[in-house]
Amino acid sequence: MTDIDNVWFRYKEALNQVEGEIKRGLDSEVALINEVAQYTLVSGGKRIRPLLLVICANMGQSIDKRYLLLGSVVEFIHTATLLHDDVLDNARIRRGQPAARNLYGNQASILVGDFLYTRAVCRVVSMENLEMNYLLSFTCSKMTEGETWQLAHTSDFNLTEERYLKIIAYKTASLISASCKLGGVMGSVASEEKEALYSFGHNLGIAFQVADDTLDYVADKNRLGKALGQDIKEGKMTLPLIHLLSRCQKKEKEMLIELIQSGKPQKDLSSILKLMEMYGSISYAQKRAALFVKKAKEKLRIFPRSTHKEALQTVAEYVILRDY
Amino acid sequence: MTDIDNVWFRYKEALNQVEGEIKRGLDSEVALINEVAQYTLVSGGKRIRPLLLVICANMGQSIDKRYLLLGSVVEFIHTATLLHDDVLDNARIRRGQPAARNLYGNQASILVGDFLYTRAVCRVVSMENLEMNYLLSFTCSKMTEGETWQLAHTSDFNLTEERYLKIIAYKTASLISASCKLGGVMGSVASEEKEALYSFGHNLGIAFQVADDTLDYVADKNRLGKALGQDIKEGKMTLPLIHLLSRCQKKEKEMLIELIQSGKPQKDLSSILKLMEMYGSISYAQKRAALFVKKAKEKLRIFPRSTHKEALQTVAEYVILRDY
Repeated sequence: MTDIDNVWFRYKEALNQVEGEIKRGLDSEVALINEVAQYTLVSGGKRIRPLLLVICANMGQSIDKRYLLLGSVVEFIHTATLLHDDVLDNARIRRGQPAARNLYGNQASILVGDFLYTRAVCRVVSMENLEMNYLLSFTCSKMTEGETWQLAHTSDFNLTEERYLKIIAYKTASLISASCKLGGVMGSVASEEKEALYSFGHNLGIAFQVADDTLDYVADKNRLGKALGQDIKEGKMTLPLIHLLSRCQKKEKEMLIELIQSGKPQKDLSSILKLMEMYGSISYAQKRAALFVKKAKEKLRIFPRSTHKEALQTVAEYVILRDY
Repeated sequence: MTDIDNVWFRYKEALNQVEGEIKRGLDSEVALINEVAQYTLVSGGKRIRPLLLVICANMGQSIDKRYLLLGSVVEFIHTATLLHDDVLDNARIRRGQPAARNLYGNQASILVGDFLYTRAVCRVVSMENLEMNYLLSFTCSKMTEGETWQLAHTSDFNLTEERYLKIIAYKTASLISASCKLGGVMGSVASEEKEALYSFGHNLGIAFQVADDTLDYVADKNRLGKALGQDIKEGKMTLPLIHLLSRCQKKEKEMLIELIQSGKPQKDLSSILKLMEMYGSISYAQKRAALFVKKAKEKLRIFPRSTHKEALQTVAEYVILRDY
């Protein structure tokens, strides 16, 4: 078994209970909601956020049992964004299967996304804990800001790495860091430990997204479960492309811009990849992701050695080791 | 001045302050969010929900000043649903002006809808009042259920009036009743008065939607600010059509179904209206709306006579008097 498989195995029981909470939440009177939500939630998400929450809850002295419910909350929020993302991106495939919008239409995908988000809020409110309420509501607000920011920078060929990192911090890292901190809250860790878990999640979340954006160019296509080059097709400016555009020659930049504006850049993905190879753009992005993983792990320094701490380190490393 | 104009005038100062809170909430770092939200929020909504909240807050003995902030919250939620609705309906016009999606695209409309909803939640959470938190989160969940239910019944020619009423109770009445009750909470009314305001809003909300659905067939087109027959074009089963389909002859029903399935029923709106005239479908719907207004007003019985109570009665009557 690989290290990450070992981690999944170790927290399997708790994650199964989270899975139960997820299913229990899909009890709307409206059959269509349960159907679409179930299809999207059960079609093989990795459950990284619940896993992180569960591990972090174990970092303290005692666990509030409601951490399992909270595991479903972060997965509901994540799934809500996936449903909306697929509509935004006209995605046809998600995790190797037809995207929900392809089976149920855009309308149902938008509304069921809305439902999952509101259901998540209901569950947090019912826990009657202001700190968690604050954290999750501001997290969700940041996520929509990050997504909109990204949209506003579609085909912005001058997007800086700095702004890109801020966008992915908002759209991706915010929910991952919140998941870690919420776990800490449920595990009654000390105040500075909560912040350490938050920072761990923040850096891990950035690494996760940079790795994801890099894999969109170089993943094992079959294991990724969708075609490569989706981001550049949508005019989404991610780190490998940002690096390439800032380093290549003027003529090459003009060619790249023309290709992207043609609307079908993924048809010439091999020449883009050749340029990225030449200028080291893929390895640059991979190194940046590795740096954020390193930062994430450093944030765990304040914790004593434990199997749970090791599990967090393993998850952090997995984020950049995966090839899909 | 008409009675309803008098009401608007009487609460003008508070509503102006709500307007200030609305503008203050559009302070995202992301310029596109502020632009789309401002366009949609400032393009002339009637502000019925904030008005009801403000009047209800005045029904008690003392007012928590944060009712103005709460007025912005219900309008944010309402606007979030409008942005998503316009995407769902492929709407080109909203209130006589291009729908946001027509200027900024579906993607921005979906995301800014998400943003407004999350911002509304942040504002409620920051008020640190569990009762309001519960009420608003479950309201939003019901709204998405109502919307999805409606979608699931698109072109369902056997939809019953009973189910239709439940759908509009969820999608429309829930936020109106919540606005009334929240006003009551802010005005420190007694417990049974809170429930009375909630029931008032519930019945008013149903009347409001039935009237709206009827106006889609018979409104003054210029004042409505959009073409008639949008609902039937979208296969949306509303009360006049439900009534007609349940009363007309088999041959007429077949003709109607064929017309709706053709995708362009609004081109033959005059013959549909003739049938509705013949079977009294429009006047039936108008009478049902009037009945719900009557029920709404009855719920106010427990309150002593006051200018604020009279204002609520005037708003209730306005809902069925308006011709656009």
